[in-house]
Formats: sequence, C-alpha cells, structure tokens
Amino acid sequence: MTHDIAHLGHVEMLTDRFDESLDFFTRVYGLKLSGQDADSAYLRAWDDYEYHSLKLTRSDRTGVGHIGYRAASPEALERRVAAIEASDYKTHGWVDGDDGHGRAFRFEDGFGHLFEIYYDTCWYDPGDTADRPALKNTASAYTGAPPRRIDHVNLLADDITAFRTFMETCLGSRVTEYIQLDNGRIGGCWFTVNNKTYDLACTEEHGRGQGRLHHVTYATDQREDILRAADIFLQNGVHIETGPHKHAIQGTFFLYVWEPAGNRVELANAGARLILAPDWKPVKWTEPERKKGQAWGLKTIETFHTHGTPPVE
Amino acid sequence: MTHDIAHLGHVEMLTDRFDESLDFFTRVYGLKLSGQDADSAYLRAWDDYEYHSLKLTRSDRTGVGHIGYRAASPEALERRVAAIEASDYKTHGWVDGDDGHGRAFRFEDGFGHLFEIYYDTCWYDPGDTADRPALKNTASAYTGAPPRRIDHVNLLADDITAFRTFMETCLGSRVTEYIQLDNGRIGGCWFTVNNKTYDLACTEEHGRGQGRLHHVTYATDQREDILRAADIFLQNGVHIETGPHKHAIQGTFFLYVWEPAGNRVELANAGARLILAPDWKPVKWTEPERKKGQAWGLKTIETFHTHGTPPVE
Amino acid sequence: MTHDIAHLGHVEMLTDRFDESLDFFTRVYGLKLSGQDADSAYLRAWDDYEYHSLKLTRSDRTGVGHIGYRAASPEALERRVAAIEASDYKTHGWVDGDDGHGRAFRFEDGFGHLFEIYYDTCWYDPGDTADRPALKNTASAYTGAPPRRIDHVNLLADDITAFRTFMETCLGSRVTEYIQLDNGRIGGCWFTVNNKTYDLACTEEHGRGQGRLHHVTYATDQREDILRAADIFLQNGVHIETGPHKHAIQGTFFLYVWEPAGNRVELANAGARLILAPDWKPVKWTEPERKKGQAWGLKTIETFHTHGTPPVE
Amino acid sequence: MTHDIAHLGHVEMLTDRFDESLDFFTRVYGLKLSGQDADSAYLRAWDDYEYHSLKLTRSDRTGVGHIGYRAASPEALERRVAAIEASDYKTHGWVDGDDGHGRAFRFEDGFGHLFEIYYDTCWYDPGDTADRPALKNTASAYTGAPPRRIDHVNLLADDITAFRTFMETCLGSRVTEYIQLDNGRIGGCWFTVNNKTYDLACTEEHGRGQGRLHHVTYATDQREDILRAADIFLQNGVHIETGPHKHAIQGTFFLYVWEPAGNRVELANAGARLILAPDWKPVKWTEPERKKGQAWGLKTIETFHTHGTPPVE
Repeated sequence: MTHDIAHLGHVEMLTDRFDESLDFFTRVYGLKLSGQDADSAYLRAWDDYEYHSLKLTRSDRTGVGHIGYRAASPEALERRVAAIEASDYKTHGWVDGDDGHGRAFRFEDGFGHLFEIYYDTCWYDPGDTADRPALKNTASAYTGAPPRRIDHVNLLADDITAFRTFMETCLGSRVTEYIQLDNGRIGGCWFTVNNKTYDLACTEEHGRGQGRLHHVTYATDQREDILRAADIFLQNGVHIETGPHKHAIQGTFFLYVWEPAGNRVELANAGARLILAPDWKPVKWTEPERKKGQAWGLKTIETFHTHGTPPVE
Repeated sequence: MTHDIAHLGHVEMLTDRFDESLDFFTRVYGLKLSGQDADSAYLRAWDDYEYHSLKLTRSDRTGVGHIGYRAASPEALERRVAAIEASDYKTHGWVDGDDGHGRAFRFEDGFGHLFEIYYDTCWYDPGDTADRPALKNTASAYTGAPPRRIDHVNLLADDITAFRTFMETCLGSRVTEYIQLDNGRIGGCWFTVNNKTYDLACTEEHGRGQGRLHHVTYATDQREDILRAADIFLQNGVHIETGPHKHAIQGTFFLYVWEPAGNRVELANAGARLILAPDWKPVKWTEPERKKGQAWGLKTIETFHTHGTPPVE
Repeated sequence: MTHDIAHLGHVEMLTDRFDESLDFFTRVYGLKLSGQDADSAYLRAWDDYEYHSLKLTRSDRTGVGHIGYRAASPEALERRVAAIEASDYKTHGWVDGDDGHGRAFRFEDGFGHLFEIYYDTCWYDPGDTADRPALKNTASAYTGAPPRRIDHVNLLADDITAFRTFMETCLGSRVTEYIQLDNGRIGGCWFTVNNKTYDLACTEEHGRGQGRLHHVTYATDQREDILRAADIFLQNGVHIETGPHKHAIQGTFFLYVWEPAGNRVELANAGARLILAPDWKPVKWTEPERKKGQAWGLKTIETFHTHGTPPVE
Repeated sequence: MTHDIAHLGHVEMLTDRFDESLDFFTRVYGLKLSGQDADSAYLRAWDDYEYHSLKLTRSDRTGVGHIGYRAASPEALERRVAAIEASDYKTHGWVDGDDGHGRAFRFEDGFGHLFEIYYDTCWYDPGDTADRPALKNTASAYTGAPPRRIDHVNLLADDITAFRTFMETCLGSRVTEYIQLDNGRIGGCWFTVNNKTYDLACTEEHGRGQGRLHHVTYATDQREDILRAADIFLQNGVHIETGPHKHAIQGTFFLYVWEPAGNRVELANAGARLILAPDWKPVKWTEPERKKGQAWGLKTIETFHTHGTPPVE
C-alpha cells in the first residue's frame, strides 16, 4: 500500500431509467442531490465530504461509467500517473473533471472498466441552508437516512489475478481477503488503499460481459439502519435481492437491492472492523468454505452469481 | 501524517487493586487474558490482532505506564526513531519488549507520559483452542462482549499546544478536532495516525498532576453493545460516570465507567465515521460551543474535568 | 384489573402554536395526519389502528384537552359508565365523539383532567393510497419514523393516592410501580389496564397547577429508533430536555423533548417487557432509591420536576 | 378472549441428549438454571418471573412434554376446568405440579399434545445471591443474554381448524393471524390469551407425526440481541436453520436454531407490536401471499416445513 491514493471518491452509475433511478436514490435510498447537469445527477450521502459520491448518468444502458479515486496530495497524484503511464494499461490522459472535482487522469483495467484519479475536489458546502449540519464535524444535515458515506464498488472481471496486478500497480491497493477456487483461479478479491477493510471488490465474471458492475455500496452507522431500510424498501416496492445477513468474507452486514434500472445497490455495515495491521496477511477463502454460504448459513442466491449490469444474455 | 506509524497498539494501565481490576476487565468489561507474567496481565479484545492491547500492571498507584504505537514497517520505525532523536524530547532508547511485542524505542512527551514505538509484534494465535474464531478473518472467538478492538487513549497535559507539537514530531500524527478556549489556549486536541477519527486525545490538566491518564477506550461494533454494557455495569456495581450519550466532538457514542482502581475506561462507537480526506481541516470547537454540552444536550459532569489517574489532591 | 377497558386510545393536546406544533409532529416527530377539522388535527403513528391517537387542538394555552380510553366491548363500556356514575367523580355524560370515534362518556379525576371512554371507533383505512402498508398486519405504510404506536400519558396531580383510587374505580386500572416518599405520600404511580407495563403515569404536581400534563409518549420498535430520533431532533433545533437514557422505574429507554408550544413529548422503548403476571405486586421505589438517579446514573434534571403544561408561575 | 388465562407459563421439552441440551440452553442460548430434579432441569430467562419457563426433561425422544398456561386467578382456573370438563377433550385431571408451580389440570388437544393450566406458582426468588437484580422491577440479574422471557410455542397438528376450536374452548384464546390455503384448509393459526401478538402457533403437520413440536421461542429486548446471538451460535457450532430475517406473518424478527437434540428453538423480537384492539379481525394470509416468502423476500427453507420433533420418517 503506497498511501498515494487516499480513498474511493465516487462511482458513475449509468441508468436507462434516469428519472426512476433518481427518484429511488433520493426518496427511497436516502442520498442527497448536490446538483444536476444535462446528463447527470450528482448525489452524496449525508456525511460524504465531497460534492458527490454517486454520479448518476442518463444512458441507453446500465452499469458503471467510471470509478474515481482521490489521491492523497498533488505529488501523490503525479506519482500514480507516472506509475500508470509506465505500465501497459490503456490510458486516456487528463480530463477536466466535472461539477464535483478538478482534473482527473483516466485509465482502464483491461476488462472494460474506466478509472480516474484526481486530487482537486469540491468540498460540499451546505452554506446557510437547512442542509447545514447541527454538528460541524459532519458534512451536512442528518436526515435519518441509512447511507452515511460511500463504501465500496464491486466489479466483475474475467481474470481476477490480472485485475489484482492492475489494482496494485495503478492504485497501490493491498488485498485484504480473496477466494481461492479449486481450479486454481482466484474467484474474488477485496482491495483497500487505506484502513477500510475494502473499497473495491472484484469477482469473477460468469456471463460474457465486459466492464460490468456487480454493485455499489454505501456504509451505514449501525446494523439497525439496514434493518430499517429493509422495511422501507419493502414498503416502496424495491426488489430486495438478498439480506439482511452477514457475509463470511469481510464480516459485513449486508442488504442488496436493485434500483429501478437494475443496478445492484448495497447497504453495508462493518461494525468497528478496520484493517490496521500494516502487515495484514490476505485471508484466503477456499471453495469448500464458500459452499457453507454466508456467515449465518444463508445460501448465496443464484442471481448474485449471474446478475450484473449491463445484463448479458 | 507520515503513515510511518500504523496504529495505536496498546496501553499499559497501572492498578493498585490488581486482582479486582483484572476481574473487572475479564469478567465484566469483556477483554480476554492472553497471558500473565510476574507483574502484568496481557489483555485483548476479541478482534485485536496483537497479543495484547491492554497491559495491566500491578503498582502502588493508578494511571498509565506507557503507550505503545506500532510502526508501519521496520524502515518506518527507523525513520521515526531518527526524528525523535533529532528532537529535544527525552528518550530512553531501545527496550526489549515484552510478551506482546519485540524491541521498542521509548521516549517522553514532556508531561510525564512514556511512549514507545515498535514494529515486531506477536500476532495473537488461538491455536486449536475454543478461542479459535468461527470466521477466519477475525482474531479470536466472538464472545458477545462489547469491546471489539482498542480504540484510543486520552491523556492530560498542561500545554496542549506543546503536546500537539510532540505528537506531530514524534508520531507524525494529524489533528482532526480541537477545542479553542476563550483565553487563547487549546483545551483539547484529537490526533490520528491513520483513518480512524482519533487514536489519542489530550485534554487540559486541571489538577496539578503529572503524566496523568484521562481514560482508555475500546470500540464496539454497534451502539447497542454500549447500551447492553450499561446494564451489565449496573448489574455488577461498576461506577458509571456518564453516558451513554453522544459526544459533540467526534460524534462518538460513549459510556464512561471507572474500573475498581479508579482508572476511567470508555466504550465508544463511531458508527461509519472515518477521516478519509487527506486534506481534512481540523474542526475547531469554541468555548461557547462546548458550553452547550454533549451532542444531545447532556451537561458534562464535573468529575469528567477533574478526575484523572493517579488522583491528585 | 377488570379488563373492561382495552387500552389508551388517544390524548388531546392543546397548543397555542398550532402550525408549529403540527409541523413538528408531522415532519420531525414522525406522526401521520389522518385529517383536520376547524380546530384540531388528527394524528397517528404508522401502526396505530385507530384514526388518531393524538388530537392536536388549537387553543390559547398548552396542556391536555382530554384523555380517551377505549372499552373492550359495548357491554364493558356500560359497566364502566355505571361504575363511574355510582362514584362521586364529576361526570359530563355522553358526547358525540369526533372524526376518530363514536359516542364517549366523559368524566373528571378531581384534579382537572378530563377523561372519556368509548367503544365505537374509526379503524384507520389507508384505502388504495401510498399509505397502504406492504404488510397487511400493520395499520399503514412504514415510513421509517420512530413512533410506532401511542404508549402512555403522564399527568400531574396533587394527591396521587386519590388519583389512584380514581384510576381503579373508573378505569379498573392496576398499579405496576410507584414511588413511596419519605413523608408517607405517594410521589408517582404507574397504571395499566392491560399487559403493557403502563399506559398512564401520574406524578406529583410541584407547581400550583391544575389539570396539568407532564408528557405524552409514543413507543418505538427499537432503542436505536430513539438514538436516531435524538440526531433528528438535534438537527431540527428541537429542545431535548433529557435522554436518551434508561429509567430505573419501569426500565424504559427514554428521550424527552418539548414540542414548539412547550408540551413535553417522549419516545420510549420497553424492550420485551410486559406485565403478564396476574398477581403482579406493585414495585415500590423509595426516596433514597430515587436519589440514585436513572438506571445508569443520570441525575434527573430540575425541569423534569417542575415543567408541565400549561406552565405555572 | 375470556381473560381467564393470563399467559403461557412454560413448555416441557424432551431431549435424548440431556447434558448437551442443558449445556446449550445455559451456556450458549442464555437461560438460567433454577434447579434440577432426577429427570428435569428447570430453566428461565433473566426476566421470567416464575421459577421456570422451560422444563428440560431427559427422555428417549425429543419433542414437547407438556405446555403450561397460568390462569388469571383461582376462580378463573376453576372456570376453565369446568369448560374443559364440559367439552369432549380428553382430560387427565389434577396433577400435583412440580418444583415450579402448584397443582395443575391436564388435558389434551386431540393431536397428541398435553396441556396444563394452573394458578399457584413459584415466583423466582434470587434471594441474596449474585442473581439479585440491580433493578427491583426485573426478576433476576441481567446477564447480557438475549432471551428476556418466554414468548411462544409452535405445535404441529393435522387439522388446524379443529385445533383452533380446542384453543378457543379450553383456553379462551383468540386468533390474531392465520394462513388460508387454496384447498380451503387452514395452514397455520396464531393464538393469544392476552395482548401479546401470539403465545402459541399451530401449523400443519406435513409428516405423519403425532403431538409434534415445531419450536419454542424466547423474546429478546432488541433485534440487535438476535444479531449478536447469531454470531454466538456460529461461534459455538450451533446449527442455524434460518434467519435472522423478518416474518411477514406477525412481523416478528426471527432466528431459528436446533438445540443439540434437534428441537428447534427461536429467538424473536416483535418490536413495539401488541394486539390492543379488542375487536381485532384475524389477518388472513393466502397461499399466493405466502409464496412471496418472508417479509424481506427470504424463501422459507424446506426443513422449516418438514422438521419437527420428534422426527418422523
């Protein structure tokens, strides 16, 4: 872990049902709208410090537009850019940024996912509105909504080992846990650039998709926030895919739903778990161990292995 | 923040009622005993990865023996030692370590607190005992006890501004929040070496003490763990000083009790709050803001300003 | 306990800031508006089965208008009316009811509080609106708001022993807990007509008030709902008087706030506690026991002993 | 509902692995041992007011021994006995009772389940032991264990309609919810004698069993207690059958495990839900509604329909 990258900043999610998706994220899921431009809505959880952590973009398909990580400093950003340019990964050079942050360097992972790293950002400022927080150490008004901050993104790729090299090379990420399949392949891998247990997971693509998204996740303060959310999802006719339950891997308490366009969205709670050990040895999960299901015995449902966005035949 | 120091590793707490203190920490508070030598018991929460996070030492007084931070690597340790030796802070050189870790470099903060930094450590290994965790990504068996891992220590010092320089110089800590008194002095300061909101707090010494301890804190997974703990403390006749309630500063849900020898011990829950922004601007709390009490209006009780260990007249 | 009275049905609360009070109860506290007539708004929690559990009435003062209990059957209602008429308590005879229920028999407690009992009621019917619940065994759509159903009302009276006779005579209530003062007087008394631990409490009037209200309370599903509510109250500038904490008496987890007109409103959670024993012996709390404060040591704040509505000089 | 019966008092559970079952209930599940005689252990949750709520009896098979309900008064007991004797149900007359209660009248439901009703009982008295509660309104010392009090029992029977008549005739129970199958039969029925949402459920026997037990349940104060229990069960190698999740029927948050001998045991939390309406109309669940699974979409697992104790081929 180089510490050059500070944290996952935002995910751009594509939707072919923009209005319904926006309604879901703001009215049901509980994000706040910072602003909109022609094609995108900029959304954030109540304690995300940046202008946005989810860029919801109108498209003719679903899935992920790009994944943005914030660098630790201008110098760290330069170091990462140099490392990426020295690699064989496809780069797109610098882009201007958007309403939420300044210039960003873009590159690809070889599996169809577009990444960007940036340092200059827009701190969210509620000004003298009702969105001003009662406690000055939080980013905006507490609404009671479950998501507190963006937590992680889960991508699909054909070759997790190759994806791991990408994450280490380009972002300086470290692996905290992974799945070792009987066939010798890596079935999934959990990465972090800081002390969170993970900010990105990559699991094996079982369809013939390219650049697909498995899910985007926001963190809640308490597990109870997730139980409450389940009832809110139920009341609002949201498709609850699986959960609430506890993952064996990473021990995260989870709930997965599909937003109206079909993108999978998670609420998760890690409790007080952090990876503080500088010499943390990645935890290996074997295929027999995975077959036991989730932590408390829930069998992983079939769609969890097959559904990604955009969908594939 | 240099990232040379990975995290707070352990605190040595002194007790003049060793047996009662040990009974409290193991039977009531919920730590596990890793081992004992002639004068000390080595304790840990169920998910502390190191052999111990609390060294409870028999003494003729209460308070803190020393505070141990783990470095991020052998090289980082050397860098920190060089920085400390280049400063004016009093050093004690290398010590051998104890049952819980290898050699450590010791130094003082100028207010009577002894610190040490180390890299070589003993990962706790439950072996094939009942303490083997059901989930391999946790350090030992889940017991249901509230403390999951050590969280932070709070010290008292006469000059917080000077203490801040010490923390920045020796540990490369950054300040996340602080109290600015009307008289121009800093009333309290919260430090971190990683993404936790703080791992050490220092507040103004209002007695005439030297090297005093305000409290040691363990983190719980959920706020509910703290509510449950309150009933357990009540049932066991433990002195509950204040809480459960929520701090305005750092937003932590807290509960403070005194262990049998009088050392203050906290259980705390920060929810999903982390300091991920690399350019986090320390949050300033003014004296009028502090007068409002805690987040939900609880007035800070008098002993919280005066009681430290060892006690002073 | 006669079982003639089924449960506390509603409380009429008077406000001299009607619009602000209504905004508080609907937008912040989380009740739903069933309807309004010229002077009153009819409010209910999401799982109150009746049309309203709080009748908020525009007035030139604050406090309680009347307290309504629902009888177990038409016959039980007649039995109670006969018992009340056979007593010396002042009666007002039958009134027509209002939007929320049918004819009701009204009577007074001798301390200025107006009670009514009724059987015919309006079951709340969401029809085919968005308020239709996802689960047919709940009364209306789950909103995520803390209050699930009305829980109890707390009145003030000069002579609790006399008030107790009133409750036993008129409602057939039983006492579950009470405070025995050193001077021989009863300081407070908790009553129930069913298996709830209490549906009405009466505590000693320390001002020179008449017919005053101490507070009205709604029950939450979980303690976490109350912790969340505290942050919502904080964010909305609501006066939090005391809590969250746990009462020693009845063991209820509580949070008290003042609605904009000054009436005290509580959120409470009793956990799984019920009074199922038919021969429950009322629990006596002595004055020294009360001096210990609440369950976890919180000192009862002064306003809790003095503030009631309407206020007195 | 006659109110003659106050509440479910205890269940006698048979085990052919007595020592293991007793170890499970005391060390893992969290009940307390009040005492033992030659064949039985008398167990209770920390806030059960009677000497025992679970009588665990050594046997050559598993399942339920008898189900005990406590009457509301000696007179109510006589009324019930008269009603039962006037019916066609098989009776066994009066038995002496056991360590936990006085004389009891025994009768059968026609499906092989033995019931008893009694009034004289042994209030649990911790005396001056460590089991004395810190709060005098609770029955014994708070231990932190999830079960607070016995909640309900679930039996299996071939003809739920006939079973319903039994419950109404003998206990004066009312039905709060039921399952209406497409074939016209009742698939399950939930009964209560008080304000709890149910104290006994009866679901259709799908094996060829007689007098079988589906499960016994204890109530927890909070849902979080159940999430914690799941981790404790996991750590102790207990078979977690399904959950934690929320039932659509009755809205109960649940977790089902099998104790070492195979009897199914539940932990459940109903939140603030009570049935207070005296004219509550039983909620009907159709077969298509049941096919949707539990409240948040969990499919009911196969063993839940087939496993009962004693097992059948």
